[in-house]
Amino acid sequence: MSSRPDPAPMMRWWGWGDPAHGGGLPDEAFDELRAQIGAPDRRTPPVPAEEVRVGERELPSSVQSLLADAVGEEWVRDDREARILHAAGKGYPDLIRMRGGHAEPAPEAVVYPAGEEEVRRVLEICGSERVAVVPFGGGTSVVGGVEPVRDGLGEVVCLDMSRIAAVGPVDERSLTAVIGAGARGPDIERSLGAAGYTLGHFPQSFEFSSVGGWVATRSAGQASTGYGTIEKLVTGLRLASPVGDVEAHSFPASAAGPKLREMLVGSEGVLGVITESTLQVRRAPSERRYEGWMFRSFEEGAEALRALEQGGAVPDVARLLDEDETRLSLMLAGSDSATARVGRRYIKVRGYAEGCLGIVGWEGDRAGVDRRRALGSGILKRSGGLSLGTSPGKAWERSRFEGPYLRDFLMDRGLFVETLETATHWSGLMGLHAAVRGALHQALAARGTPGLVGCHISHLYPSGASLYFTFIAQREDEAPLQQWQAVKSAACDAIVGAGGTITHHHAIGRDHAPWMTSEVGTLGVEALRALKERLDPGGIMNPGKLIPPREEPA
Amino acid sequence: MSSRPDPAPMMRWWGWGDPAHGGGLPDEAFDELRAQIGAPDRRTPPVPAEEVRVGERELPSSVQSLLADAVGEEWVRDDREARILHAAGKGYPDLIRMRGGHAEPAPEAVVYPAGEEEVRRVLEICGSERVAVVPFGGGTSVVGGVEPVRDGLGEVVCLDMSRIAAVGPVDERSLTAVIGAGARGPDIERSLGAAGYTLGHFPQSFEFSSVGGWVATRSAGQASTGYGTIEKLVTGLRLASPVGDVEAHSFPASAAGPKLREMLVGSEGVLGVITESTLQVRRAPSERRYEGWMFRSFEEGAEALRALEQGGAVPDVARLLDEDETRLSLMLAGSDSATARVGRRYIKVRGYAEGCLGIVGWEGDRAGVDRRRALGSGILKRSGGLSLGTSPGKAWERSRFEGPYLRDFLMDRGLFVETLETATHWSGLMGLHAAVRGALHQALAARGTPGLVGCHISHLYPSGASLYFTFIAQREDEAPLQQWQAVKSAACDAIVGAGGTITHHHAIGRDHAPWMTSEVGTLGVEALRALKERLDPGGIMNPGKLIPPREEPA
Repeated sequence: MSSRPDPAPMMRWWGWGDPAHGGGLPDEAFDELRAQIGAPDRRTPPVPAEEVRVGERELPSSVQSLLADAVGEEWVRDDREARILHAAGKGYPDLIRMRGGHAEPAPEAVVYPAGEEEVRRVLEICGSERVAVVPFGGGTSVVGGVEPVRDGLGEVVCLDMSRIAAVGPVDERSLTAVIGAGARGPDIERSLGAAGYTLGHFPQSFEFSSVGGWVATRSAGQASTGYGTIEKLVTGLRLASPVGDVEAHSFPASAAGPKLREMLVGSEGVLGVITESTLQVRRAPSERRYEGWMFRSFEEGAEALRALEQGGAVPDVARLLDEDETRLSLMLAGSDSATARVGRRYIKVRGYAEGCLGIVGWEGDRAGVDRRRALGSGILKRSGGLSLGTSPGKAWERSRFEGPYLRDFLMDRGLFVETLETATHWSGLMGLHAAVRGALHQALAARGTPGLVGCHISHLYPSGASLYFTFIAQREDEAPLQQWQAVKSAACDAIVGAGGTITHHHAIGRDHAPWMTSEVGTLGVEALRALKERLDPGGIMNPGKLIPPREEPA
Repeated sequence: MSSRPDPAPMMRWWGWGDPAHGGGLPDEAFDELRAQIGAPDRRTPPVPAEEVRVGERELPSSVQSLLADAVGEEWVRDDREARILHAAGKGYPDLIRMRGGHAEPAPEAVVYPAGEEEVRRVLEICGSERVAVVPFGGGTSVVGGVEPVRDGLGEVVCLDMSRIAAVGPVDERSLTAVIGAGARGPDIERSLGAAGYTLGHFPQSFEFSSVGGWVATRSAGQASTGYGTIEKLVTGLRLASPVGDVEAHSFPASAAGPKLREMLVGSEGVLGVITESTLQVRRAPSERRYEGWMFRSFEEGAEALRALEQGGAVPDVARLLDEDETRLSLMLAGSDSATARVGRRYIKVRGYAEGCLGIVGWEGDRAGVDRRRALGSGILKRSGGLSLGTSPGKAWERSRFEGPYLRDFLMDRGLFVETLETATHWSGLMGLHAAVRGALHQALAARGTPGLVGCHISHLYPSGASLYFTFIAQREDEAPLQQWQAVKSAACDAIVGAGGTITHHHAIGRDHAPWMTSEVGTLGVEALRALKERLDPGGIMNPGKLIPPREEPA
């Protein structure tokens, strides 16, 4: 086996993103944050790389040879670096574990198939040898979706899809393109952009996540209010399962029974590996206009966004920060510049102090943006909004992929920082907001680590919207995972209790699996089990994810 | 058992719709049609009602008592009228069979549950007594979806949903309403309309079909290009299966795994009975503007509609007749009026003679219609279209639900008349059109009954469109079903061969089941079987529909 370089850039083993990326907070902003949550000034760096433990287990040499025959010896890696880099996703519990040096049990090997035929052979080998398989795109899951769980099987291999990454030519009449599962955000936009198109899918993980991962987890991007979440963009896909290939043909619409495509989209690797997708693209916008708006309250802002969405003026990007997140966001931006002071004065004079910041973005050709923006701005004004022009929009755009870097900065400084998200209908949105916010504050306080909790609306739909929560508190160094589990559980219970979905776009993975029965009911889970048992009878595909274990009768 | 009147109006036993409805063609139009296909002038009426055979079999009295206990004695009907009226859908083969007096084997009884709890009890009884259950909404299936197939079971009961028909109040913030499965089009629009809303779903069967049927078959309506097909309007639903209730909660969006809702929508009664749905509604439009446009060719018109759809000017209604259907439509309208003559002269002078008629409709408030229409009209003109004003739109609107009555008129006169539909991506649309059109002409000619074949584009999507074919020929009186089967098979093979879906909105039923393996692949069919076996282990739910029988190894 070799230690050939990765086909696509890998992230820091202990955190997010490009190892060369700096980032963080200005001192004054961080001091203010510390003061608000009563955290001491300290450094809690990850353990040195050489102290990371990967586990003793090895892949039997017979299996190694079979896999090497299938994909070529150089594409079966069991070196320490590859195993560490594929040992976890990028959720808070993943990072706690990795920063503490606990990569074990890492996958025994990482396999890099070059195409569908090689995927098929790897699945056959793993099926007959009883080895678990974890499909791996960008490895950016924040819900434990790529954790190398064995679930009764002896070994696990990670199936890194980064060599299956071709971005096909655009069908210029149908505006579709076939894209290999391993292709990542920047490569896709670069390739489509060269021909004048865009997919328009920009999740916060964009720089590292793959289209296969987006499709397998029902990803939403920052412009998905306009472009549609990935499930609206996928017109067809192919999945390799342990019993053979499944193809959902790319039809614009069909009435041929329950939708096969919708059984595969969101399947999180438990039915098989998505190998390619056909995706709807659009002409690349010549104009992008993101603007800031202030509202006197979260409720007023939410009603304004609802009026936009239901009034035929749907923007491409729509976000609305609640009062606390607006304050937090201004604080973290180090808002002591002259411009920021002038802005604050304007907002105060106009009666919007202590209000909520919204970002509304329009994309398209100049005429289309002007037309839609005029319509939308009229609605927002009539709904009580105060236009702040493009500066807040530009600031948001500059920092749109920075969140995960900031998390690393805060984790390096002894803090507990986490996000979670949900969605519900408009008539239940404020109730859901209050319930989850309350549960987070209460759960954090109950651990003796009171925190800051912010929330924003991130995506609009005719019948409702999503809520995205961020919270920051002091970390319990003795029991960071217990602290996380307690707070996470309280939030999930509050979401379910208030009629929200357990996840709007982070997916289920391991972390949300205990709430799947609340989400889809006992028979909904049984339907998933039936699909799993038919397509993966040996249970080798991504064990422990999505489907909760069967409860044994007492 | 009683013969209590039906809770909702039933159609003619031998054909479509309101028994008091006249309709038909002017003599000259019919004579012209006959001349074109070489058909003699004759009458072929249905047999007298008293000659209809329903079969000798009866429900065992023990089962009758159990069902009577479950729903009340008066709601278990086994009178001749009820059995005949529930013996078939409204497809061409259904009507051939019924008109010939062959209602046998009719369902042994028709059961009318009053609510979910009664549905549950009926399914329990039928499960333990091994009686097949055919869910029945409006009974308008044109693909054999309500045929009382026994499939190895002794008896079959029809589960008429017309008593579960409440239209709930509109959630005015979320714009949703919960509607009972048996509610029919006019009742829904009347009830929603009284509060200022519309569902906007107008399939040709609108006057008789039920929302449960729409959801179970992925229905599309005439305004679905704008409002969305029923699958876009359903935000949640409940289904009673033989093993218990399944509920897909109404969330605006969710990333919680494969979409349960999409496993139930389109399930055609084979997994259970849809009892209620939550549907997205809209404010009722104050303005409806339907306009005619001429294009020099089908291809030019299709490109114009594509430009509308992809250019951000999606109309609510969009139809484009090909050259033959344009001609056929003018002929059948008896277009010898002075206005029609003037219209033809105008079209000819402007160079659009022998061209294609399009209908484009805009709905909403006045300002919205004006804005969208201005944008759309500009695109249509630049794409080569000639505006004909609102007269053709109004003519289309007047006759939008008349097609099935015309079919009865033609069947009464010895003709074979049938429709079928498909969809594909824009880049394959003209190829699919040519392939199906060619296959129909060839198959009809091969039977010695050359016919007229028309086609129109009926729904637009970003990646493609649907094609709806109508054909008329002389009926083979000795072998009408063999004639139908030969032509239907040829068309279906051509659809599959040219990359179309086997059905855009008619669903699978019995008629399309042989093409399901082409549609979703061997493992796609296995996935459906897995769902079926989990939710309906006894195989009592709507046997013989949707899922093709397993092929025995040779």
